[in-house]
Amino acid sequence: MSEETKAYIAGFLDGDGCLMAQLIKRTGYRFGFQIRLSIVFYQHVQNIHHLKWLKSLFKCGYIRTRKDNMAEYTIVGIPVVIKTIRQILPYLRLKKKQAQNLLKFERISKKPSKKEFIRFCRLVDNTVQYNFSKKRKNFTPEVLKHLAEINLSP
Amino acid sequence: MSEETKAYIAGFLDGDGCLMAQLIKRTGYRFGFQIRLSIVFYQHVQNIHHLKWLKSLFKCGYIRTRKDNMAEYTIVGIPVVIKTIRQILPYLRLKKKQAQNLLKFERISKKPSKKEFIRFCRLVDNTVQYNFSKKRKNFTPEVLKHLAEINLSP
Repeated sequence: MSEETKAYIAGFLDGDGCLMAQLIKRTGYRFGFQIRLSIVFYQHVQNIHHLKWLKSLFKCGYIRTRKDNMAEYTIVGIPVVIKTIRQILPYLRLKKKQAQNLLKFERISKKPSKKEFIRFCRLVDNTVQYNFSKKRKNFTPEVLKHLAEINLSP
Repeated sequence: MSEETKAYIAGFLDGDGCLMAQLIKRTGYRFGFQIRLSIVFYQHVQNIHHLKWLKSLFKCGYIRTRKDNMAEYTIVGIPVVIKTIRQILPYLRLKKKQAQNLLKFERISKKPSKKEFIRFCRLVDNTVQYNFSKKRKNFTPEVLKHLAEINLSP
């Protein structure tokens, strides 16, 4: 990918994209929650070719069309999100801090201890301040409540 | 301006900016209408620094804050819009056709004949198809109606 293409995508993401860290409730997960990182690009379905072009460059993620005639290109998962961010980070401006925050999740272990998991849950909470109007359901207190309920020792 | 900066701005404009050609009713104008070209970048007031950065690069236009906590950076006028577009055109993707359409207005005379003016009014009409939901009030028929009313010979 050329530097100009990386810069273009950084501008496009700053204008109309979304970087997210979320705590998703999941049955079957050791701590009852998944830490999910994602990058989302939006576009009217009329311009879905633009999202397909992005996908052809990043070679990951999936495109879906919504009922309101909008299309979304989503890259989800810690390793792929981090790999994608690294490519455009030098050119990001508005979402640079948020992107740098997501890079911190690279250090989470494959099998984190309860203590480590909670530390990263708090890092998810910290990313919220960079998002304007997110419908966030779960924060670290919900995780702590769940862990107390299932009586999991550290 | 570096090529990467131009590419970044093209991406930002494709994501969240607007290129417009409009017919504005004006008393005192020879044909009763002004052909107005403009480029608008939007951002939450919290990020007004970003719009100020853009303005420092293009060295034209003005920034205003709206009551809904949004800020707009607007570049208006045929020569400045054309000059601005030329800088980012190679990197534009979604709004490239629209930008190329605006460049055609470079050829309008300072004192166009009625026939030439109407030709450019029709070109304004043609730019509509590239904008999704614009509240456009005036099209060439309104101009023709006005010209008939004031009984202006060609």
